[in-house]
Amino acid sequence: MQLLRANAEYVVRSVGAPIEISHVLVRDPAKERVPELERERLTTDPEVLLGDASVDVFVEVMGGVSPAKSYVERAIDSKRSVVTANKMLLAMHGPELVERAIARRVDLAFEGSVGGGIPVIRVLREALASDSVMRLSGIVNGTCNFVLTRMRADGLSFDEAVREAQAKGYAEADPSLDVDGHDAAHKLVVLAMLAFGARVEPHDVPTEGIRGIEPIDHRFAERFGFVIKHLAFGSDRDTSVELRVHPTLVRRDTALANVNGVLNAISLEGRALGPTLLSGRGAGDMPTAVSVVADVLDVARARRSGVSGLATRTIQVRHRPVSSLDEVFGRYYLRFQVHDRPGVLARLAGALGDAGVSIEQMVQEGGAGSSGVPVYIVLLTHEAREGDVRRAMEAISRSEVAASAPKLIRIQD
Amino acid sequence: MQLLRANAEYVVRSVGAPIEISHVLVRDPAKERVPELERERLTTDPEVLLGDASVDVFVEVMGGVSPAKSYVERAIDSKRSVVTANKMLLAMHGPELVERAIARRVDLAFEGSVGGGIPVIRVLREALASDSVMRLSGIVNGTCNFVLTRMRADGLSFDEAVREAQAKGYAEADPSLDVDGHDAAHKLVVLAMLAFGARVEPHDVPTEGIRGIEPIDHRFAERFGFVIKHLAFGSDRDTSVELRVHPTLVRRDTALANVNGVLNAISLEGRALGPTLLSGRGAGDMPTAVSVVADVLDVARARRSGVSGLATRTIQVRHRPVSSLDEVFGRYYLRFQVHDRPGVLARLAGALGDAGVSIEQMVQEGGAGSSGVPVYIVLLTHEAREGDVRRAMEAISRSEVAASAPKLIRIQD
Repeated sequence: MQLLRANAEYVVRSVGAPIEISHVLVRDPAKERVPELERERLTTDPEVLLGDASVDVFVEVMGGVSPAKSYVERAIDSKRSVVTANKMLLAMHGPELVERAIARRVDLAFEGSVGGGIPVIRVLREALASDSVMRLSGIVNGTCNFVLTRMRADGLSFDEAVREAQAKGYAEADPSLDVDGHDAAHKLVVLAMLAFGARVEPHDVPTEGIRGIEPIDHRFAERFGFVIKHLAFGSDRDTSVELRVHPTLVRRDTALANVNGVLNAISLEGRALGPTLLSGRGAGDMPTAVSVVADVLDVARARRSGVSGLATRTIQVRHRPVSSLDEVFGRYYLRFQVHDRPGVLARLAGALGDAGVSIEQMVQEGGAGSSGVPVYIVLLTHEAREGDVRRAMEAISRSEVAASAPKLIRIQD
Repeated sequence: MQLLRANAEYVVRSVGAPIEISHVLVRDPAKERVPELERERLTTDPEVLLGDASVDVFVEVMGGVSPAKSYVERAIDSKRSVVTANKMLLAMHGPELVERAIARRVDLAFEGSVGGGIPVIRVLREALASDSVMRLSGIVNGTCNFVLTRMRADGLSFDEAVREAQAKGYAEADPSLDVDGHDAAHKLVVLAMLAFGARVEPHDVPTEGIRGIEPIDHRFAERFGFVIKHLAFGSDRDTSVELRVHPTLVRRDTALANVNGVLNAISLEGRALGPTLLSGRGAGDMPTAVSVVADVLDVARARRSGVSGLATRTIQVRHRPVSSLDEVFGRYYLRFQVHDRPGVLARLAGALGDAGVSIEQMVQEGGAGSSGVPVYIVLLTHEAREGDVRRAMEAISRSEVAASAPKLIRIQD
């Protein structure tokens, strides 16, 4: 609202008409709000908005599925274009809402739903006008990136870093939606809808958070020339799509590895375009507002030109299965904590060899003299099938050499 | 053309009508071309295009100012929208062409002119709908970035790296437009037109290329935790704009520092948006084609909806002076080659102190025992006024301790 007012002149030039805010639907009318917001515009009754024939565009920034979904549906059904920043709603019901909007010839715009102020939706759609996206990967959860950055750069434990994120307002009191990877999975589903035309349920995306990452993993990663990032990854296969969310070792001398703190980044690989990286503030009021306002201007312009729904019509989605993690090929970082006895290395190497996994590098930490204390052994594999790697890890876990559960982190090359 | 054909279905959905290529103006009709191009569409006569009333959009990808400028002007005057990827034409005549297009109510779109496939023009314009850009900096010349990357990572000399760039087709036979910074200055002028509404002549932009960078500078930069990048930099001052193109020390642990080879990157700092980085292939047929096709679809869609010129009307430009380099404040890397005599360090420090420049770090290389051979002294300053730094350097150059001209490289913090 501040942004629309401050740039009113630009709005008129760009849309051909001013944009007026007619109502603001809120839960609590007593709450303190920005001074630009006149109190008489506030309402707690959705019927006031939906019943006002002069409302052209419905902006939904309340979050959550209910009641946002029913409001958005009713706005579409009454031929309003909708702008939303609600990634959970889109991840759960994006394809049906898009179809609904297309059927009613209105627009559904959602730049603010992924990557805050990073215009990734726009770039994806522009690129897709003449290109196809083969692969994408991104840091799409600022909380995870903040926590991993603080652990790596400043030696904090996971709990300390999460507490700091909470104190700074980067993480919720219950941080699980972020640190367990679900928020990133929602965003990946939205990206996959656009990039690959894939209709996927969030719970079908293999999702792993960052709770299992320990300070020692950051140290070992560094030793091998990597940093650990929490990535959402998508790739277009023939009939299926490969989608997954998990911590990843990224080479230290890449741009992605140097996107730190709460910043987000999304890297796209287009057939014609090659690699493209977009980075910026992934969350926060102002960056999201910039995206929402850009969407509002777009749909308002389309409405004024009588071409509402044209942009939304370019989104075409069909059911596509998510390929199994077992069938993924890649390199792996494996960390074992084992009892320091003769023959332990041979046991690890043997189990991996039996599964057809070959080892590229191996490092052992601790163990010199202090017998009885478990030691860490970390190894990087050559390219291997993930199912085979998991089979070997299970065999090792069950054996008497394992002092705790082993940890697998995928490597992005 | 390949891209338009391959994505014909998307084009129809997105524009509401198919796009047909009616003529292709070429210099040499005998030259071998892509198989998609029917020979009967080729012409060497601009009148064939300009005289055909069925032509809606004029796409200019010939490059250079003449005759491109007169073709673009005539296309605009005859009410065609124009898509161009011609950065030189835009740097020299962008504001007048924009005004011309606005007056005739047609669009002038130029995403392909800066950053190849990186959608920086689009992002700037979207962001500006509700935000203002305070600062931008970017690696906008792939040749410079390739040469600097090869020098740093593989120890090549400047000449060797340029020859390799030429062999790979990244540099022209005469590489001066690239390595002397003029191409980057052209792109900066185009960016400044959009980001700051500034009308600036390319020759008013302080421009320095990468010829003066020696392998030893890469070594010293590394020692201090930096890499050397050739950057275009712009900043919005009250009445003036600060624009400059030069090699720059960038902290190694930033995303920008890790954009290597021929890749380009542009970083924007918006008041609401915060920092945003876009990176990708800055040149090449396919990335540029992706940008040109996205523009063609935009202007075709606007034309079909009867709102041609609306997007172009948002560009507003006025003359703004470029602030003097002397008035820039920053930190500096200074490299001196001096005769190894007693008191030489005191002389350097004294000259800097006299000019009010204070030293943060100083490193000397060579000189131990091998008397008579000049030694290198490199120092980093604290923040200082550039005019003061230059004054000190001139005093040192003139003194009898200097064995060769000193080198100044700006530091980006």
